[in-house]
Amino acid sequence: MTIRGYVLVETEVGRTQAVGDAIRHIQSQFASVRAVDTVTGPYDVIVQLEASDLDNLGKSITSDIQNLDGVQRTTTCLAVNLA
Amino acid sequence: MTIRGYVLVETEVGRTQAVGDAIRHIQSQFASVRAVDTVTGPYDVIVQLEASDLDNLGKSITSDIQNLDGVQRTTTCLAVNLA
Amino acid sequence: MTIRGYVLVETEVGRTQAVGDAIRHIQSQFASVRAVDTVTGPYDVIVQLEASDLDNLGKSITSDIQNLDGVQRTTTCLAVNLA
Amino acid sequence: MTIRGYVLVETEVGRTQAVGDAIRHIQSQFASVRAVDTVTGPYDVIVQLEASDLDNLGKSITSDIQNLDGVQRTTTCLAVNLA
Amino acid sequence: MTIRGYVLVETEVGRTQAVGDAIRHIQSQFASVRAVDTVTGPYDVIVQLEASDLDNLGKSITSDIQNLDGVQRTTTCLAVNLA
Amino acid sequence: MTIRGYVLVETEVGRTQAVGDAIRHIQSQFASVRAVDTVTGPYDVIVQLEASDLDNLGKSITSDIQNLDGVQRTTTCLAVNLA
Amino acid sequence: MTIRGYVLVETEVGRTQAVGDAIRHIQSQFASVRAVDTVTGPYDVIVQLEASDLDNLGKSITSDIQNLDGVQRTTTCLAVNLA
Amino acid sequence: MTIRGYVLVETEVGRTQAVGDAIRHIQSQFASVRAVDTVTGPYDVIVQLEASDLDNLGKSITSDIQNLDGVQRTTTCLAVNLA
Amino acid sequence: MTIRGYVLVETEVGRTQAVGDAIRHIQSQFASVRAVDTVTGPYDVIVQLEASDLDNLGKSITSDIQNLDGVQRTTTCLAVNLA
Amino acid sequence: MTIRGYVLVETEVGRTQAVGDAIRHIQSQFASVRAVDTVTGPYDVIVQLEASDLDNLGKSITSDIQNLDGVQRTTTCLAVNLA
Repeated sequence: MTIRGYVLVETEVGRTQAVGDAIRHIQSQFASVRAVDTVTGPYDVIVQLEASDLDNLGKSITSDIQNLDGVQRTTTCLAVNLA
Repeated sequence: MTIRGYVLVETEVGRTQAVGDAIRHIQSQFASVRAVDTVTGPYDVIVQLEASDLDNLGKSITSDIQNLDGVQRTTTCLAVNLA
Repeated sequence: MTIRGYVLVETEVGRTQAVGDAIRHIQSQFASVRAVDTVTGPYDVIVQLEASDLDNLGKSITSDIQNLDGVQRTTTCLAVNLA
Repeated sequence: MTIRGYVLVETEVGRTQAVGDAIRHIQSQFASVRAVDTVTGPYDVIVQLEASDLDNLGKSITSDIQNLDGVQRTTTCLAVNLA
Repeated sequence: MTIRGYVLVETEVGRTQAVGDAIRHIQSQFASVRAVDTVTGPYDVIVQLEASDLDNLGKSITSDIQNLDGVQRTTTCLAVNLA
Repeated sequence: MTIRGYVLVETEVGRTQAVGDAIRHIQSQFASVRAVDTVTGPYDVIVQLEASDLDNLGKSITSDIQNLDGVQRTTTCLAVNLA
Repeated sequence: MTIRGYVLVETEVGRTQAVGDAIRHIQSQFASVRAVDTVTGPYDVIVQLEASDLDNLGKSITSDIQNLDGVQRTTTCLAVNLA
Repeated sequence: MTIRGYVLVETEVGRTQAVGDAIRHIQSQFASVRAVDTVTGPYDVIVQLEASDLDNLGKSITSDIQNLDGVQRTTTCLAVNLA
Repeated sequence: MTIRGYVLVETEVGRTQAVGDAIRHIQSQFASVRAVDTVTGPYDVIVQLEASDLDNLGKSITSDIQNLDGVQRTTTCLAVNLA
Repeated sequence: MTIRGYVLVETEVGRTQAVGDAIRHIQSQFASVRAVDTVTGPYDVIVQLEASDLDNLGKSITSDIQNLDGVQRTTTCLAVNLA
């Protein structure tokens, strides 16, 4: 069973496009980048990730995304099926 | 050209599943509900909406989503293509 | 592979002990309650949960914990192995 | 159909007038600057933008405004017709 | 010399359109309502007011706008010419 | 008709007295400094300004006060007669 | 030696004028009300109090002001001479 | 070895004196009330407690103080000797 | 009549003990340091000061405490007798 | 009687794994590190400490944890038995 998560990224002012592009070019060994949108609102980029388990998702966020230049903060929302 | 947005929904404590289900059953004249996930983190439900223009997207948020029982606050992030 | 999480619970003023006791008596079909501590600080009760997958962990939080009398807010921190 | 937005700009302390002037002189390929006011209150400059679509509006905010010296943070409010 | 101000209005969830409409129908003895937009973002309605002096602007905000059903909070930004 | 305002000043830690003194010595072409108090509480200095109109008051805040060494943030409260 | 303080009052929405009037009519046994201004900004009324000592100032705030209908929160800034 | 703590109490508006008096009259089986001060600032009452161990201190806060009428929130700071 | 106050000190991370020690060694011409505790919780050091009047207390906070290396922010709560 | 506490650690962006590893390798003279988890959510690492008394627990937090490279802020929640 895979794990899916939304990563809400805040960037330094003026760096939104560059961060969005960098995330689109991530070649991750941990997770698949399913979608990347630069957005208006309190966040600057929303990333949808999918991984085989929670550890790989965590590694992708901390290794692939948080280390990019211009990333200031990330907030992760994991999809859970409550039905 | 269509407009896409992420609606980050906060629900009353204990109402996440009910709100998620209600959003999944929305029959909107204003927008298409592309995806609905109940999530962990500071938000409880993330909705992806698509509409023909910004006004219809706004109507869907205020009429379709904000009026549901248990919805406490919504934050909207609109996808913008900066390339 | 199991999922482990810390649920940081804020209670209504004066309800900490009652909420702590109620969580200790949870008989959950979704998750195992590994530890429960009433605590000082910005949170009132810290719960350690373990479940077979993220969905069951989510169901335990929303069904078992958030519906208890006196629970005001929960914040979930999921253990991830980044090594 | 055009898109209109209010951009609420916070500047570094003592930079309000300079930022206001710089925005008034923007020659944007993405959007029209309809009005610029330096203001009292929690924001320092309020800009009214109009663009042919949301993407151009987003480009104007990130390319034209956020890159100006002294701009610390921007908050965007897009006009939506809910009637 | 007239005074102009932006009133950033937060409404109760689900009341944005009703509040926007009510403000559009204000017949004020204190100020002119120059523009009203329902908006996305942290605010729900942005009103542009103009009055003969600051006292009349203040009266319009407290008497005309804050007393409307569904208005939760207002933030005022007054235009100042720093040139 | 004159405009009166309270400027609530936050200073860098340890700079309260120096900022208070600097404000007391302001020779402004825009406004009269009616009173200056160094204070306890969430603010460090409270200044009462009076000007012939809002623009001059704004110029005094941004030119006379915000440019002083040690000033970190200012919050302005304008007196309005609502009677 | 007297004590002087600024009391920054937040009122319920729509109650600013009533609270301002009520404070102007205070007949206090504890302190003198030196000035009362209804204001724009994050506060609604600013009161300047003077008392023979800190205890009387405190009594005036808690007995005279905080008990008035429509007062939601008060923040006190006491004048201190640091020279 | 005893445990000492400062309990920073926020009360409902207008209830500071009553809460301060109630705490002064506490006859606790868990802790000794060493000092009680009604105060200005972001808190309303500061209580100094001493107990034989952390559990008794915790019981005193939740049973003796948090259950009093008018208490809205408590923040506890425990004395630690770092030398 | 003397003035007593609690100064709630936040220090830079890792500097709590050094700041606590420095405050214990203050030789103030303005106030007596009655007690100093390094603490857990949102603050790092709690200082109890006593001075002959409010001005001297204020001078002690701004000159004696705020100028110490590692002090990031102070919050003052003055004891008031409301009885 | 021992003291147990949860230390909720926030790290600089991109430093979660390194801080988690450093805490796992702590050889403390003050406390035992019972468990360390890198986590998702508003905190990055959750540490469970146990010490012979509160002073030793405090020393471990300030000396062992807060001095590590990449630690930005810690929040401590002490276990209390309220039964």
